[in-house]
Amino acid sequence: MTASSKPYVVGVDLGGTKILAAVFDRRLRLICKSKRSTKAVRGPAAVIERILRAVWDAVDEADLKMEQVGAVGIGAPGATDPESGKIIFAPNLVWRNVPLRDELEKKLKVPVFVENDCNIQALGVHEKELKGKPRNMAGIFIGTGIGAGLILDGKLYAGFNRTAGEIGHMVLDVNGPKCGCGNKGCFEALASRTAIFKTIKKAVKEGRKTFLTEKLGKSLKDMRSGDLRKAIKRGDKLVAKVVERAAFYAGVAAGNIINLLNPEVIVMGGGVIEALGEQMMPVIVSTARKYAMKGTDKGIRILASALGDDAGITGGAVLAWRGLEAVSPGGQEKPAETPRP
Amino acid sequence: MTASSKPYVVGVDLGGTKILAAVFDRRLRLICKSKRSTKAVRGPAAVIERILRAVWDAVDEADLKMEQVGAVGIGAPGATDPESGKIIFAPNLVWRNVPLRDELEKKLKVPVFVENDCNIQALGVHEKELKGKPRNMAGIFIGTGIGAGLILDGKLYAGFNRTAGEIGHMVLDVNGPKCGCGNKGCFEALASRTAIFKTIKKAVKEGRKTFLTEKLGKSLKDMRSGDLRKAIKRGDKLVAKVVERAAFYAGVAAGNIINLLNPEVIVMGGGVIEALGEQMMPVIVSTARKYAMKGTDKGIRILASALGDDAGITGGAVLAWRGLEAVSPGGQEKPAETPRP
Repeated sequence: MTASSKPYVVGVDLGGTKILAAVFDRRLRLICKSKRSTKAVRGPAAVIERILRAVWDAVDEADLKMEQVGAVGIGAPGATDPESGKIIFAPNLVWRNVPLRDELEKKLKVPVFVENDCNIQALGVHEKELKGKPRNMAGIFIGTGIGAGLILDGKLYAGFNRTAGEIGHMVLDVNGPKCGCGNKGCFEALASRTAIFKTIKKAVKEGRKTFLTEKLGKSLKDMRSGDLRKAIKRGDKLVAKVVERAAFYAGVAAGNIINLLNPEVIVMGGGVIEALGEQMMPVIVSTARKYAMKGTDKGIRILASALGDDAGITGGAVLAWRGLEAVSPGGQEKPAETPRP
Repeated sequence: MTASSKPYVVGVDLGGTKILAAVFDRRLRLICKSKRSTKAVRGPAAVIERILRAVWDAVDEADLKMEQVGAVGIGAPGATDPESGKIIFAPNLVWRNVPLRDELEKKLKVPVFVENDCNIQALGVHEKELKGKPRNMAGIFIGTGIGAGLILDGKLYAGFNRTAGEIGHMVLDVNGPKCGCGNKGCFEALASRTAIFKTIKKAVKEGRKTFLTEKLGKSLKDMRSGDLRKAIKRGDKLVAKVVERAAFYAGVAAGNIINLLNPEVIVMGGGVIEALGEQMMPVIVSTARKYAMKGTDKGIRILASALGDDAGITGGAVLAWRGLEAVSPGGQEKPAETPRP
């Protein structure tokens, strides 16, 4: 049985805090999922060991064997080189030049394909949620940081150094708050989870009242996006205002994207959107349309991804199927020709 | 002789104030150029008549006949529909749904191809100046307004509503000066000729000194970009500072583009860059590299177009040759196969 004739692949989403792995079939149906913490502080070798265990767990839980798995597709946070399979630089993991693909292939004995995390999230949303239809799509993912994946002219767009999609460092407010990158007013410094939490903590220090302190204390330690949603639902004015402001900036960013790239669909995703989409999306959509040049947003959809946290693993599966197809196009069944989910 | 076997095409750049037309050969060598004012106030029919005269003039001055011209490619300011050949909306001309292609074809008796002006400028720079090499390029054109043309994956990128490239309305300073579009802090409101002139006029009203008033009077009537260059060369501090500020914003915009699209080349063009490139480019380049995420600008070139005002007509010629190739691929010589200039 050639790799491309095997019925399953595994998609992996390697994040700064957690690793998700899941078995998918040819129609991109999720068969079984596993999750474990990343423990990046232990260093690359330990993290790679944890990725392997996540993959084996998902396969085992699905009552399958690795022999039935054709390939693994993995998204990593940071600059990746799909050709060499290396992670060039991943600040969240403190990785530099880690040969992730080769290390995984040694143990997994199947082809492994590596991509940037935002790129595979965009790929997952495009292929599974939007059935591969839009020629041009921008996926904007808001979590601890902010990134984007671009599907242009039907394909994942990477750019010259393969670093396209760094929308988190698009300047929206040149005199705005300082960003981790050293500049001011980047999208990420205005609307990421980090930025939202920082603003709330500062306000609490200045004596502003919020329901959040009831459960989390004045330090707001261990605050999560879900806490903000609950606080807003209880009528917390401070939290509502801070989240609305972040949504406004996300809308300005989406408006910039409509002006610049005019994609058919803008998909919002990531942990912040998953937790606070209900509160943020109306503001994001109305702001984006206000900032788009008149008439240019006609027919363009702006929506929250329904895949949520599964966008990355789904995209990993898409990457794996496409990689197999490219490697052995003579396989029994061509993934590209199988019916789309 | 089929259209595609004829040795020449005409490229036209229809602007808000002037019309340029020029005859080009297959190697994109400019044979002869003509120029006349647009006189947009006279309405579409009169402007179309003036375009025809510009085309005929260029052909006649080149000692050629229209029979030797295979096609005409024209760039128009605003939203254009290359398929129908219509200008959907051109605010500078006050045009709405003008069937430019059909009107021109009636009189010229050759195929006419229509595109957005920034798109053809990018096309001209990419094909003639950069020899068609970069897979991905962004052309940013700063004049009365600001626009961009994007070459992505080797092709002109237009987006869903064919309005991609509206970089002039990318917000860089969300609390910045009001833009004509109704929003605040758009690139165009910070760095266009209009924005630069406005800032200088305001400063003069507030009593700031500048050499510009010597020639132009306190009202600064009929100020041109070239006047600013001369003033800076004489040591005019006000003008130098205002132009430097505009260059800074252009650099932030270019940095945003590197982060988002990571093109191999960013080309700066348009009247402001043509007049003030020497002063602005060093600031644009250093700012863009400062705002690009660390390492992502490696190997990326940021340069001023050497084609200047000829970018549009050159792109018009590229459009015409490509259009002919698409229409009659069976022509004697295929333009796509002729050696590149």
